[in-house]
Amino acid sequence: MKSYGSMSRDELLSLRQDLEQSYESAKAKGQKLDMSRGKPSASQLDLGMAILDAANSSRPVVSEDGTDCRNYGQPDGLKEARKLMADMIGVPAENVIVGGNSSLSIMYDMVSRSMTHGVMGSTPWCRLDKVRFLCPVPGYDRHFAITEHFGIEMINIPMDMSGPDMSQVEKYVSEDASVKGIWCIPQYSNPQGISYSDETVRRFAALNPAAADFRIYWDNAYVAHHIYEEDQDAILDILGECEKAGHPDMVYEFCSTSKISFAGAGICAVASSQANLDDIRKSLSLQTIGPDKINQLRHVRYFKDLAGIQAHMKKHAASIRPKFQAVLETLEKELSGLEIGTWVKPKGGYFISFAALPGCAKAIISLCKEAGVTLTGAGATYPYKNDPDDSNIRIAPTFPTEEELKQATDLFVLCVKLASIRKLCR
Amino acid sequence: MKSYGSMSRDELLSLRQDLEQSYESAKAKGQKLDMSRGKPSASQLDLGMAILDAANSSRPVVSEDGTDCRNYGQPDGLKEARKLMADMIGVPAENVIVGGNSSLSIMYDMVSRSMTHGVMGSTPWCRLDKVRFLCPVPGYDRHFAITEHFGIEMINIPMDMSGPDMSQVEKYVSEDASVKGIWCIPQYSNPQGISYSDETVRRFAALNPAAADFRIYWDNAYVAHHIYEEDQDAILDILGECEKAGHPDMVYEFCSTSKISFAGAGICAVASSQANLDDIRKSLSLQTIGPDKINQLRHVRYFKDLAGIQAHMKKHAASIRPKFQAVLETLEKELSGLEIGTWVKPKGGYFISFAALPGCAKAIISLCKEAGVTLTGAGATYPYKNDPDDSNIRIAPTFPTEEELKQATDLFVLCVKLASIRKLCR
Repeated sequence: MKSYGSMSRDELLSLRQDLEQSYESAKAKGQKLDMSRGKPSASQLDLGMAILDAANSSRPVVSEDGTDCRNYGQPDGLKEARKLMADMIGVPAENVIVGGNSSLSIMYDMVSRSMTHGVMGSTPWCRLDKVRFLCPVPGYDRHFAITEHFGIEMINIPMDMSGPDMSQVEKYVSEDASVKGIWCIPQYSNPQGISYSDETVRRFAALNPAAADFRIYWDNAYVAHHIYEEDQDAILDILGECEKAGHPDMVYEFCSTSKISFAGAGICAVASSQANLDDIRKSLSLQTIGPDKINQLRHVRYFKDLAGIQAHMKKHAASIRPKFQAVLETLEKELSGLEIGTWVKPKGGYFISFAALPGCAKAIISLCKEAGVTLTGAGATYPYKNDPDDSNIRIAPTFPTEEELKQATDLFVLCVKLASIRKLCR
Repeated sequence: MKSYGSMSRDELLSLRQDLEQSYESAKAKGQKLDMSRGKPSASQLDLGMAILDAANSSRPVVSEDGTDCRNYGQPDGLKEARKLMADMIGVPAENVIVGGNSSLSIMYDMVSRSMTHGVMGSTPWCRLDKVRFLCPVPGYDRHFAITEHFGIEMINIPMDMSGPDMSQVEKYVSEDASVKGIWCIPQYSNPQGISYSDETVRRFAALNPAAADFRIYWDNAYVAHHIYEEDQDAILDILGECEKAGHPDMVYEFCSTSKISFAGAGICAVASSQANLDDIRKSLSLQTIGPDKINQLRHVRYFKDLAGIQAHMKKHAASIRPKFQAVLETLEKELSGLEIGTWVKPKGGYFISFAALPGCAKAIISLCKEAGVTLTGAGATYPYKNDPDDSNIRIAPTFPTEEELKQATDLFVLCVKLASIRKLCR
């Protein structure tokens, strides 16, 4: 296909006319589709229904060590749940605390606690003039929303195919004591699906922060979320690497089963050094008398072990793979060679990230909206919802049916073409 | 029985010798009993086992409005769960947000949010020189632990049989703008089992705080927790009273099913004005994508409505009534007339509160401990674990079996006698 950039003005104007017409016809269809939500579909959720049967009235809900899961206690979570989550992210069970249904809450609490109580005895961040977080972009809007809520200044760090630009990370972290954290999604990143290279992970572990209370917020949300059976990424264990590099306390790692069991009723965990966990426990022991251990037991009884999780994730992969492929095929078929956008073909995670011509993302999303297809809001993948290039669009293929997704993607590529050509004709 | 105070020194010395001997024999039995924990017993937890069956793989876990409870969303909780919890505390459902398994977490979050973000636009408390909370005493150690954790200064307010000393409350709240809150357990208070009189509730609602961000923390933890079928307390609806008095935003009310369904796997709620709920939602929407709605659905399906909760609570009452009676009978039989302690006979809740002779609580608890009976730590019912009179002891009768409880109470009264007589002989 001929790239738009190489077309003459007349060619562009003529093509534009065709596209405007196609768009009007598409709009007339009155579609109502949604590619905005990083949620599992109903059929994915159906895969785990037997989890609900794993705790029932016919059998005592008692853990391996005899704990009555119905009663108060065990703020660290059930021993066997700690083991299961630890195995999933490849760390020792004693480094893990298992919580309720939302790893986001743990992350929020971690920032909130640092604001009010500092980190392992450091000055509470609320007493500092400036607190900054590094934010690899594009990234996860809910991470950025937390730091924004607490008035933490966010600094964009560009991503490349091996992770965040580590030269910039190293410079900020080592030179600026107001830099207290960095948001990372190290495997199958949201939205690009990029997995950090071994070198990137090692450079993270080797950071020499100016601030003793600098922490890496390592949100390993998609660790088991492969799309393909053969072609899978794996990342190094950051806890182990930090320990080896002499910085055992530099990282908090987060994970959950939200997209393994149930998005609303899974279990979540935080992994870190004993010193960090002790710091966390000081607050946690006041916040709650314990997590929902019955739900932890359900998960352990159903999945049994890491192999159980992996087997289950193959079913999820089978369910979502055709959706990812459908979107990618359409992008390839309709946009390849036009030079009006690039995208990453992810091997896991929940998203496809599309980089439109600079200045076109808002226009594309708004064209889609007008024709009945909802995409994640423009800028959502950047701190302050501000994508300086107005380029990134996050596509979430899992929730719609395959048929809906095909229709939505057809409209999407049409809108990409139209918005791009409108820009080029300006 | 002759009071110890009216005995001659010789009588006291002789009795003391008998008691020391009895204590040595009791100690020799090597008992190991626990009256410290305000936890439901296993047989109480058995009452609700069918809750676990209320969500299973044979039936869609979908709420009344069609929400797939397995997926993300609904940060306010399921509509029908809001109705259930609202009916339990007698407020409109739209004033209620239903959360996870711990009302303590909501309270902690409320204080934490006020520290970092203030209350409805007020100055964040972390920026103030002094923040104070009023603490009716004796009270709940976990309340006090939260405010202590955030460096909030706590002021003791004495309780009488109609609730906190309202003259003191009114004076502090109206005159001191650093007073930002008060911890209340208005019905069957922990540990005394006192229910606030209508006049007390109305005086709360009529408070004219010096601080616009003063809030009543109304922990209605035992609203449905009657011990007797006939003789039950009921308190006025504080939300309604505050609204009538022109202070609709002055109160946060908390409740949970922790001691109705499962202590570790119940559901909890906060009730307040729309303005306060909107303030809460600003943080809550960043903290989590939603509570565990499947567990909410379990509760609604099992209890159905307020009548269902009440019927279930009758079973709890039948289970714990003999335990309360056993303790009270022993106290009555062994201590009545001796003038070495007083206690409240509660009509609900989870505790019996014992007031020893001033300066004797630590000694009694330590004697019990040495002979194998664990009681709640001395001072635990006061801010900073500091009971200025060293008098209050909290007895938790629900968790042990009736037989264990009888043995433990026998030892308890012996230790009360011994510690008292040792003091009188000094």
